[in-house]
Amino acid sequence: MSDIQRAGTTRRYSDFCIHNGVVHCVEVPPDAHGDAATQTRAMLASLERLLVQAGSGKGRLLMATLYLTDMGDYDAVNAVWDAWVPAGTAPCRACVQVVRLADPGWRVEVAVQAAVGA
Amino acid sequence: MSDIQRAGTTRRYSDFCIHNGVVHCVEVPPDAHGDAATQTRAMLASLERLLVQAGSGKGRLLMATLYLTDMGDYDAVNAVWDAWVPAGTAPCRACVQVVRLADPGWRVEVAVQAAVGA
Amino acid sequence: MSDIQRAGTTRRYSDFCIHNGVVHCVEVPPDAHGDAATQTRAMLASLERLLVQAGSGKGRLLMATLYLTDMGDYDAVNAVWDAWVPAGTAPCRACVQVVRLADPGWRVEVAVQAAVGA
Repeated sequence: MSDIQRAGTTRRYSDFCIHNGVVHCVEVPPDAHGDAATQTRAMLASLERLLVQAGSGKGRLLMATLYLTDMGDYDAVNAVWDAWVPAGTAPCRACVQVVRLADPGWRVEVAVQAAVGA
Repeated sequence: MSDIQRAGTTRRYSDFCIHNGVVHCVEVPPDAHGDAATQTRAMLASLERLLVQAGSGKGRLLMATLYLTDMGDYDAVNAVWDAWVPAGTAPCRACVQVVRLADPGWRVEVAVQAAVGA
Repeated sequence: MSDIQRAGTTRRYSDFCIHNGVVHCVEVPPDAHGDAATQTRAMLASLERLLVQAGSGKGRLLMATLYLTDMGDYDAVNAVWDAWVPAGTAPCRACVQVVRLADPGWRVEVAVQAAVGA
């Protein structure tokens, strides 16, 4: 067995990669419609499923990078984020406004590292 | 004891997270006023304190991502950065200009990974 | 011997840093001229050399962050990327459009983490 475990691997990307007890994962909104809160909620729900599938979980995040396309969404995204992260387990977090994400409808994208295992 | 050590944990983020001998840390300027050099100097001083608290140090950086809001600040930020990093220990570094950071006054933000221990 | 191995270390950055079986590496186009495909091809060729030098390889990527300065280059960059990544080994990948990179001619920059060893 390889020392790298991947899931959802296409020509371009994997849904997650595990190595050395750390899972790397990037998630985008499953639907490019809807406001920032809606997109963030669906994106984090999808991220949570991937983390569980990887043997990790949303309470084991180490680092998160949030890319927004409009910092005016900051409060809406944070409200969803704050409610989603289990109390006492918040990761380090960078949050920046970029010009655009790959899909012009996406208002948010997140890249994380999390610890695998209990 | 958990295999993840966090410090400064709020509902939203932690000041740093340690796992597997690596510390993750994101730092912003403690004061949104002042020019880029002033903000960078204060931000890196704060980052240095966090790294030491985490059992790491500025000479043990592995990767740094610098987010600027104006690439016109590049030389000013670099002058502070170059003097701050111990000679021979510079990490990998990405430096990009984003549209905005969470506080409209911030001119710089940094995300790092560093090795813990001596 | 240190537990951190660096290469190409200047006052400002290293070409790569290895720690705990993971190599961190940031690469930019060696030449700021040319279209996005040309820049991406040269950048990824250079990244590949660094990864091999680090005892890793392009088939062992864990995470890649692609910074573009024009999302209009997305298809051109992806065509090069998709052909470059060995089938079945694609890493997690974030791709965002930023305002500018350090050199105004650069259309792309990439930061990666990869597993060292076979």
